[in-house]
Amino acid sequence: MIDLSNSFIFPKGNPAEGANFKGEVWQERLIPMQSEWNCPMGNVTFAPSARNSWHSHPGGQILLVTGGCGWYQEEGKPAQEICAGDVVKIPANVKHWHGAAKDSWLVHIYIVTNPQAGSCEWMEPVLDEEYDAL
Amino acid sequence: MIDLSNSFIFPKGNPAEGANFKGEVWQERLIPMQSEWNCPMGNVTFAPSARNSWHSHPGGQILLVTGGCGWYQEEGKPAQEICAGDVVKIPANVKHWHGAAKDSWLVHIYIVTNPQAGSCEWMEPVLDEEYDAL
Repeated sequence: MIDLSNSFIFPKGNPAEGANFKGEVWQERLIPMQSEWNCPMGNVTFAPSARNSWHSHPGGQILLVTGGCGWYQEEGKPAQEICAGDVVKIPANVKHWHGAAKDSWLVHIYIVTNPQAGSCEWMEPVLDEEYDAL
Repeated sequence: MIDLSNSFIFPKGNPAEGANFKGEVWQERLIPMQSEWNCPMGNVTFAPSARNSWHSHPGGQILLVTGGCGWYQEEGKPAQEICAGDVVKIPANVKHWHGAAKDSWLVHIYIVTNPQAGSCEWMEPVLDEEYDAL
């Protein structure tokens, strides 16, 4: 397994805290929420098996996977494997989660699109039995 | 010199054609100009010494440098070295250029911010004597 514990290319940032993450996750903001660019973005590093909770974005989001492999799943659909070089296009208001594979780190840039539509809505965690079945 | 001729992480795409580039440059569109994400982006790979012409963006642009090293220069200011991991924040309507160093490939993602403000305005090439003096 490639060790991406010091992240990959962009800064690793600080541990992500709170109930919206399971496992070890780090985040670094690259472009702030409010700026003349109107395009918040950041870098997220997931340790193996780490993931976020189900959530949705009222204006959508783009993920640029810069390192490792993991999962992206929209509600009601099978989880898709995502790896470095993949571009994930998350439509507005689609409930989804993303995170690392069991045997890989995952590093991605996120870009909040149409930020004027509002903030991310966080929902319930991905159950261990759902994740473990992948 | 690290060979990034097959790009780095994201697809290399096709040769960039026309008068707005000098040297070998490749581009791959990752998110189209018109989409629900309202956030066009792409991957650009510059061979050593390759660069674009002076230009400006009416809504600004963000560059995420994913590989190699090169230069970013705003009109009237010294050129800044940029390398993998750097985030370049280009304000709206600021005349600038970017490209590879003489001894390095440069690969970056570009993100067009505030695309509703209008299209990139291309201007004159960076002179060889300006570039060679860096």
